[in-house]
Amino acid sequence: MTTYVTPIDNMRFLLNDVFDYSSHYASFEQLREVTSDLIDVIVLECGKFCEKELSPLYQSADQEGCHFNDGQVTTPRGFKLAYDKYIQAGWNSLSYPEEFGGQGLPQSLGFIRSGMLSASNWSFNMYLGLTIGAVNTIIAHGTDSQKQQFLPKMSEGRWTGTMCLTEAHCGTDLAQIQTKAIANDDGSYTITGSKMFISAGDHDLTENIIHIVLARLPASPKGTRGLSLYIVPKINITAAGDMLASNHVSCGSIEDKMGIKGSSTAVINFDGAKGYLLGEINKGLECMFTFMNTIRIGTALQGVGATEAAYRLSLNYAKERLSMRALTGKKYPEKVADPLIVHPDVRRMLLTQKVFSEGGLAMVYYACKLSDKIDYHVDEVIRRQSDQKLGLLTPILKAFLTETSVESTNLGMQIFGGHGYIKETGIEQIVRDVRISTIYEGATAIQALDLLGRKILLNKGQELRRFCTEILIFCRKNSIISTSPHSRKMNKLVWPLAKEVLRWQKYTLKIMLKSNKNKDLIGSASVEYLMYSGYLFMGYMWAMMAKTAHDNIDKGLRDPSFNQGKIDTADFYFERIFPRVESLSTTMMKDPYGMMNMSEKAF
Amino acid sequence: MTTYVTPIDNMRFLLNDVFDYSSHYASFEQLREVTSDLIDVIVLECGKFCEKELSPLYQSADQEGCHFNDGQVTTPRGFKLAYDKYIQAGWNSLSYPEEFGGQGLPQSLGFIRSGMLSASNWSFNMYLGLTIGAVNTIIAHGTDSQKQQFLPKMSEGRWTGTMCLTEAHCGTDLAQIQTKAIANDDGSYTITGSKMFISAGDHDLTENIIHIVLARLPASPKGTRGLSLYIVPKINITAAGDMLASNHVSCGSIEDKMGIKGSSTAVINFDGAKGYLLGEINKGLECMFTFMNTIRIGTALQGVGATEAAYRLSLNYAKERLSMRALTGKKYPEKVADPLIVHPDVRRMLLTQKVFSEGGLAMVYYACKLSDKIDYHVDEVIRRQSDQKLGLLTPILKAFLTETSVESTNLGMQIFGGHGYIKETGIEQIVRDVRISTIYEGATAIQALDLLGRKILLNKGQELRRFCTEILIFCRKNSIISTSPHSRKMNKLVWPLAKEVLRWQKYTLKIMLKSNKNKDLIGSASVEYLMYSGYLFMGYMWAMMAKTAHDNIDKGLRDPSFNQGKIDTADFYFERIFPRVESLSTTMMKDPYGMMNMSEKAF
Repeated sequence: MTTYVTPIDNMRFLLNDVFDYSSHYASFEQLREVTSDLIDVIVLECGKFCEKELSPLYQSADQEGCHFNDGQVTTPRGFKLAYDKYIQAGWNSLSYPEEFGGQGLPQSLGFIRSGMLSASNWSFNMYLGLTIGAVNTIIAHGTDSQKQQFLPKMSEGRWTGTMCLTEAHCGTDLAQIQTKAIANDDGSYTITGSKMFISAGDHDLTENIIHIVLARLPASPKGTRGLSLYIVPKINITAAGDMLASNHVSCGSIEDKMGIKGSSTAVINFDGAKGYLLGEINKGLECMFTFMNTIRIGTALQGVGATEAAYRLSLNYAKERLSMRALTGKKYPEKVADPLIVHPDVRRMLLTQKVFSEGGLAMVYYACKLSDKIDYHVDEVIRRQSDQKLGLLTPILKAFLTETSVESTNLGMQIFGGHGYIKETGIEQIVRDVRISTIYEGATAIQALDLLGRKILLNKGQELRRFCTEILIFCRKNSIISTSPHSRKMNKLVWPLAKEVLRWQKYTLKIMLKSNKNKDLIGSASVEYLMYSGYLFMGYMWAMMAKTAHDNIDKGLRDPSFNQGKIDTADFYFERIFPRVESLSTTMMKDPYGMMNMSEKAF
Repeated sequence: MTTYVTPIDNMRFLLNDVFDYSSHYASFEQLREVTSDLIDVIVLECGKFCEKELSPLYQSADQEGCHFNDGQVTTPRGFKLAYDKYIQAGWNSLSYPEEFGGQGLPQSLGFIRSGMLSASNWSFNMYLGLTIGAVNTIIAHGTDSQKQQFLPKMSEGRWTGTMCLTEAHCGTDLAQIQTKAIANDDGSYTITGSKMFISAGDHDLTENIIHIVLARLPASPKGTRGLSLYIVPKINITAAGDMLASNHVSCGSIEDKMGIKGSSTAVINFDGAKGYLLGEINKGLECMFTFMNTIRIGTALQGVGATEAAYRLSLNYAKERLSMRALTGKKYPEKVADPLIVHPDVRRMLLTQKVFSEGGLAMVYYACKLSDKIDYHVDEVIRRQSDQKLGLLTPILKAFLTETSVESTNLGMQIFGGHGYIKETGIEQIVRDVRISTIYEGATAIQALDLLGRKILLNKGQELRRFCTEILIFCRKNSIISTSPHSRKMNKLVWPLAKEVLRWQKYTLKIMLKSNKNKDLIGSASVEYLMYSGYLFMGYMWAMMAKTAHDNIDKGLRDPSFNQGKIDTADFYFERIFPRVESLSTTMMKDPYGMMNMSEKAF
């Protein structure tokens, strides 16, 4: 049975000790009230909500799935009630702006909350997560009247949002989008076309659904430069936001999927629906990136949440299940056998999950601070730099943390043995659910091209160099040549990290130069380059967490076994996970000539 | 839609060109009749059967699953009819001994057939695969009268077999088995206990099911040394093999699983059932190893089959689906976009599946020859050596080829993007089905301990040295210092291979020495050591295939693009997959002290 337990100790360690979120908030005029006490209350209370209301629906929603009858989607039993409670408890409006009825708390807190939601009930959180993306897109690109028209109801939770990009013949390749927009005399547009794989595309949780739709005007150029973005409500509304009549938006069907069965994945048909231009004409894709960037961090959190859930579940099993004796002799002679956790390979599998779970959450929490800097920092330069840095890190977060979540959850299942393959245990559901995360919201290969092609090569590695410098400074401060009291113990972490960070820059430069001659190298290197980058970023986090744990021990803060656990886990990371950079850096640097020259027939 | 297509070109390449199976058979007195023509007919006809009868039931069986009503299991629609056709066509008795009604063809051909069956319909093949294991166990350990009693009907396909080891509280740790055997006056035994996760444990395909059951006599010692093996028919039978009455064997329930839903996974209750001792008292586990060794190669073939299926499916999609333009400029300007296969990362994913699929089949076909040598070679020394070598290779085949099949099928799914996550496409079923293969019949960690602990360290690496020597001789013969006409092109494969084979021995020696002080090292290194070994074994196969392809080109044999494809794929293997040995060898050699000393509380 999957049961969510808030990882409260780990969250406090990260939010207070490692990243000192309260000082971070205190540095912004508008966030002075967000004290460490407030953060703690939010985490605790949201955790309770997840434990009590969402976690119990996780397995039942998978068994039941969504229903599609007479063009209407019904969510699994309990979702509607849980949604209402969620709204009433005020969780929905947490990080929406006060002027639109929100509580005005920072985005970072919104992400922290979302991480807990998706860890306890992935499918349920889909309905909420897409809405955050829609809200952020309207905030960034909407007119004042659009904001007044849509945001209060979305903040209130009366309406949810979606992102309508994919069509049957194109997902990644949005240039092929065929959905049409025709301008009406009243300034609105008539939208016609069919969208596919629309998460939370239809449901029974709210009275209205606000679709954010990519479509093309007849006179617009071909390709992605001819796409514009439209707000298309399921039920049309007045300028004041009052509901009118159905808007010729219908749900054609929902998909029968491998997992996340409580989340409706819909075909949405727009048959002359009324839409409202969001942002400028033919700038639709750029505007949509606001949506995608939000959602990508959300997907990273889904991966981390699933990893945490699988770790917790398999750890409990490893402590309870008795099987064989330890290789070094009986550990629990009074029992018929030793528990699984005495076996080295079981520990290897548990610790692999632990480093990805806790290291992954650290990566997201590290990045979330940037999101606040973008929103609140007084210095425009810092705002821009934070934006660029978050741009660099987002594809790593999305792809690396979902790929490692697929690995982690499968390791969790492996610990269960045969019992992991049957539905009752719950772990196989986590494995099925998590599998979508490397695919949707931009598959791993797309994130990898975004990272290497756009975020690194396009600005000649400038942003990467800045990040590398930051890591190198950290390494020097904590290395054996420093005066840090933990330099001896930290050196075995920061030394390999610093060495590899220097190589990171060297490899990047090489790819940059070589790809001038052969563009295919960008594509052939990209996924392994992204994974390589992920191991470095996570290495930085584990070194940072180890340092904090050492400091905590000095200060007498937290349970000593907790701190020692962090230090040991960091050691494990650098001993047994980080060396993956060796193979990755070898293979990513290989010329792609051979594989690109292979004839299609020879495959 | 998943549709099996016999990989006939690849099978011919392996069976004729690479491994010269007809000469292999001709070297045994009893197998002179097995000519290359006969092999070809068997492959072609069995392939047709799989394409026509089994493949169409693959997806429908998943949707329908098995049914359990009134204590009786019903298999999915079409299974019974397909089973009858399978029997009538004579496929079942192919490699069973003639004296028991079989066709007396070698085990290797039986494996070749099983590979095709599992690639086209995994679940269906479960009913057949377990029977092969049961038959082999009775052949190896049964009395003459037991053989006469059971084997003809099993060969005829009128009865199937199972392997009953697992109980609710123990799977891997068979020492905990509680099922009891009590001796009767008539020489039979009364078996009482409940077995779990019994594949093909109950079904409606045949009139009887022969369970091979591990149980314990009251006076037997504790642990695995007190286990004996019993033949327990579902319906009791006379000495002549005629059916009597129900034998107090009942099916308690079937599992609701992640995949292989057409295969019944049953709880089988023995409530005072009549059983017949198989082999000696208290030697049950040793006898059961006959069963397990057969089944483990079968599981390796399931992995390879799924990899082949995923590769084929995703390759077709990559050729058809139009998305984006090649990085180096339009490849198909007349189309709205280029097909996926122009993209470097898609090629990387396709070729990764291809190397694991074709390289994996080569590994199994290489090993199958050993199985024939054990059965037919006149020289007892060769028989023993072949047995030891197959013993060394079996855990690698089982674990490496199932782990790589999980990776491969997931890459196949990744190529499909969002379409891969929905049931219709079929690839997500392959991903779900294949997931059991790293778990059942001895999970990866168990295979790894078998390999490193039993097969290598127990005989001080003797068998491994022999295998390494064989590879090194091959490398020398084809390296730049040789007179081989392809030495220049082969050198880039055999040079890294030879270098790493030398390291393989060095690492093994190190582990041997270090594990004297700390036994935990065996466990902590084992899984990565097994994977490392797998990449070496597969490297040997790819070097061998490249050499054969070069020879074929010289001889004008086969389509030039086919041969060139093999050479290019071998290059891909050594450039982009083989370097995984770098990271694996780093991490597997790490001391396990840190992770073993971590307190359970710190996890």
